Formats: sequence, C-alpha cells, structure tokens
Amino acid sequence: MDLQYDVIIIGSGPAGLTAAIYATRANLTTAIIEGDTPGGKLTKTYEIENYPGFERISGVDLAMQMMEHGQKFGAVMEFSPVTEIDDEGEFKLVHLGDGRVLTTRAVIVATGTNERQLDLPRAKEFTGRGISYCAVCDGAFYRSKEVAVIGGGNSALEESLYLTQLVNKVNIIIRRDVFRADATVVDKVRNNPKINIITKSLPQELVIEDNAIKGLVIKNVETGELSTVDCAGIFPYMGADPATGFLKNLNILDERGYIVVNKDMETAVPGIYGAGDVTVKDLRQVVTATNDGAIAANACARYLNR
Amino acid sequence: MDLQYDVIIIGSGPAGLTAAIYATRANLTTAIIEGDTPGGKLTKTYEIENYPGFERISGVDLAMQMMEHGQKFGAVMEFSPVTEIDDEGEFKLVHLGDGRVLTTRAVIVATGTNERQLDLPRAKEFTGRGISYCAVCDGAFYRSKEVAVIGGGNSALEESLYLTQLVNKVNIIIRRDVFRADATVVDKVRNNPKINIITKSLPQELVIEDNAIKGLVIKNVETGELSTVDCAGIFPYMGADPATGFLKNLNILDERGYIVVNKDMETAVPGIYGAGDVTVKDLRQVVTATNDGAIAANACARYLNR
Repeated sequence: MDLQYDVIIIGSGPAGLTAAIYATRANLTTAIIEGDTPGGKLTKTYEIENYPGFERISGVDLAMQMMEHGQKFGAVMEFSPVTEIDDEGEFKLVHLGDGRVLTTRAVIVATGTNERQLDLPRAKEFTGRGISYCAVCDGAFYRSKEVAVIGGGNSALEESLYLTQLVNKVNIIIRRDVFRADATVVDKVRNNPKINIITKSLPQELVIEDNAIKGLVIKNVETGELSTVDCAGIFPYMGADPATGFLKNLNILDERGYIVVNKDMETAVPGIYGAGDVTVKDLRQVVTATNDGAIAANACARYLNR
Repeated sequence: MDLQYDVIIIGSGPAGLTAAIYATRANLTTAIIEGDTPGGKLTKTYEIENYPGFERISGVDLAMQMMEHGQKFGAVMEFSPVTEIDDEGEFKLVHLGDGRVLTTRAVIVATGTNERQLDLPRAKEFTGRGISYCAVCDGAFYRSKEVAVIGGGNSALEESLYLTQLVNKVNIIIRRDVFRADATVVDKVRNNPKINIITKSLPQELVIEDNAIKGLVIKNVETGELSTVDCAGIFPYMGADPATGFLKNLNILDERGYIVVNKDMETAVPGIYGAGDVTVKDLRQVVTATNDGAIAANACARYLNR
C-alpha cells in the first residue's frame, strides 16, 4: 500500500483550512478534501464583523483568503465527497465518492454542520441577508429592529435571549404550545418583556419589500388562519445536523452525530481528529473553528512524530 | 457605588481584543485595560504566517488591526497596570496603578505571559528576528537551517522535536548534564539524529553578522571554556511566567500562577473569566487566544443576562 499523505483534512471551512496551515508548516504532507462549496459555512454568511483583524468582510471574501492561505504551504486540494474512512491502525483509508481510495497516516475531520433549512419560496436567496442561522454572528445587524426566531428548543430560546440584548422585539414562533427546552431557559424567555411567543404556528411565506425581508406570514396549525409578523430578520433554529454520515463505522460520534473529542481534538481512534462545528462544543464561530484546527494539527504532528 | 462597566477586560492581546469585540457586540459596556504595550505579545513577533486570512503580516500590523477592531463597537481603552481585583459578588472592584478604582459586574483576565528573557547583550534587539520564544510560530522561518534551543524542560524538548521536522539541526544547550523532563520525551530527543545535546553550558554572547544572528557563544560551566554554536535561530525555553501577580487574593490560580478555567473560560469566582495564554492550556497561539476571548465574552454575556 502506497502512503499518499501524512494527514488528510476533510472539509475546507475555517477549521480545516487552519489545520492545513498548521499541518503543512509542521512539514506534514497534507491533502484537503472538499465535497461541497470550498470555504464552508463562511460562504453562506453575508458579512463577518467578529473575526479579529477584519473589521468587516464578506463571508465569501474571508473564505477565499483562508482558502489561499490554507494551500500556501503545500496542501493539496481534492474535490469529492468522502464516503467512508477505514481505520487500519497506522494507516487510514479515505474512500471518495469518485471511487478513489486515498491512504494516509492521520485524518482531521472538519466537515461542519448542515442547518435544517427554512423551506419557503425565496428563502435561499435571502439566507445571509435577512435569514440567518447564527444570532451571535449576525444579531448586531438587527440592533433596535424586530426579529423572528423559529423553533422552541434550547438553542432557539438561548439565541432569543441573546438577541433581546440587541433588538427591540423577538417573536418566537413555535409549532406546539410548549417548548422543548430547559425549564430555567423557558422561564427566562417567558419573563423577558422583549419576547413575544407565538404558539401553534408555522412559517408560511416571506414578506419582501425593496429586496429586503420585512416580515413573515405564519399559519395557525389549528385554525389555518394566516397572519403576518413584522420582522427585519428571521433566525430559524430548527436544528442542525453534523455532516458525519461517512463516520458511522468508527464509533466516534455522540447520539446526535457530533464527533466526541478531548481537549487535544483527539477522537477515540488514534490518528483521527475532529475540529470545528462538527465536534461536540458550545460556541460555533470562526474563531473557535480556527482554534480547533490549530490544536488538531498540532496534536496530529506530535502523534506522527512519535 | 456607581457601576462603570458591565465587563472589564484586562489585557489587549488577541484574547482581550476578541473578548472586547464579542462583549460589545452583545451590547455590554466594556473597558479594556492595558498596563504595557497594546497588542500583547503579537507586537514582539516579527512576522505571523499562521493566523488564517493573513498569509503573512507583521506582528505589529496584526496587533494594530486587532486594536482598532477591538474598539470598533464601543470598548473604552484605559492605560494603567491593574494592582488588584476585589470580588464583591455582584460587583468587582478593579484597582489601577494610577490610584483609580473601577467598578464592574464582570472581569475577563487576558494578561498573557512574560517569557523569561535571554539576558545577553543585543538580545532584545534580535527578539522576533533570530531569537524566538515560539517554535510553532516561527520554526518554519528556519527551514533547512541550524538552530539552538536553550533549556532542558519539557517545553524545550518538545519544541526541539517539533523543530526537527523543519530544520537541519537542533542544538539543545542545557546548564546541567540531565534534563528536567519526562523520560519519554528525553528518550525521543536522545534518539533523534537531528538533535545535538550540549551539556553543562550557558549562553554567553550572540554572534551577529550582517545584522543577523549567525551563532551563539557558549561557556562550559565547569571548565570555563568558550565555544561557538552555529545557528540562524535561537529559541530560549527557560520558562515563562503568567502575568497574574494582581490575582493572588482570588484563589483562581494553579501552582505556577496560571488561571484555572473550565471549557467556558469561567474561573472559580462567578463573573471572573480567564482567556488566552494566561490560562492553563497546551497550545498558546493567536488562534487559540481569539477562541478563548470569544468564549469568555459569550459566557460573560449569558452570565450578566441571568
């Protein structure tokens, strides 16, 4: 078996690209494999103003700069989805959707998550400019405005509380009349004067004027009645799923499919690392992804040096 | 007592400035206090090529860009050392060297570490361009060259092993004839053909030609004999000390003086957080510092929202 790479990094968002910078600077032969859009979720974010050093940059521009940087020290880009990884101990076999099998000594998985999308006409077009999947990233763009949050789980409610620090009013839209969240968080939401809870309702249609989101038409699930919620921003928190289907055989995922790592980003399989949004963690941001990529590559370099 | 700030951030390196970005974007009234050089250890690094998005930037330039970014959303800069923090529960009193006492609801400590400096003539002048306190940051600048590492502890040896992946030869200079390090690391060092161990010696003088480091004169501590080690880079790993003297009363430090934090960057004192190099952690990098700053500010915003 020919060894092709010291390390294969799966995913080319901030975590994967930072891992590539650190791995190649440690003289590891490195491939980055991307099955979707290079740059990861950054490319779906209109503007970033919380990545230190860039006061304001488009997600696409930051992704492109990181893409160039990630390849600067010799990392090779390969475009294909990964279908499976075989752990053969000292070697790992990375199976690609195009039929090739790459051999490597270590793997860093940085495939991120896929948000469950708001399934409405034109929703795709306004994602990143009116529809956001990240209150911490984008909440500040709606300062003193009115927003809608869709969903009643812990993250929907926590992000709603976060948004009340910035916006005038948060409308939380839930399908049932109870929340699927911790009681303490539910209490805080119910007691927050900036939050308006709309129960038994589902999003039905975007209200668009002058090429911007102005509101959301919702439908009562019992009466079928339609009404409009005024809002400049819509935050769907209907859940996200880690992109880890190809890892099912390795026994390194938690019950929701996220990769379980220790503080060195090591999984339970020696030589396989997780980094970024795809791992079990609390705060999913560009700066936390780059952190993970650096730690994973550094741990990987030390592992391969043993 | 007048409350002056929601949160006071102590230190203006990457961790503190990122915390400022996240805190102000969460609408917290925020002060950053700096007692030394604004920008932190970045300003002592000649060039950075592992901060994603900037393929190559001087430490000073990156520090300046982060300084502007950190203040963009309304954080106030105060220049003074901090001499003590009093924890009054819901309030914290931050005592400054100029005699003022600031009141706040939360504190994020991001004061970093001070490396024990190589105490030789002209050493200060070549720090960041020939003398480096960070192999992971700067090792790649000495690819295929010869370097010297001063020190025999775990980090000196681990960094030496790291450097062997990049450079042609690593000369480790130690004062005694034994290492103060884990046996497994010592074994690896002794078995690495790229490593030359020079015992019972102390650095004596820099060899400088054409305004660049060319070698290091060392002195045998038993015979007094002088000799010269050829090297383009010198990595002193004689230890670093966290800048936490002002925290001694709070009981949040480990035995070496680093701040003990959990994964949310919380210390044992509610409302007081640590971030960056000053905390107990393995990899001290710009990307790991920005990570910590974001997590600390996010945890702080949620704490203050309770």
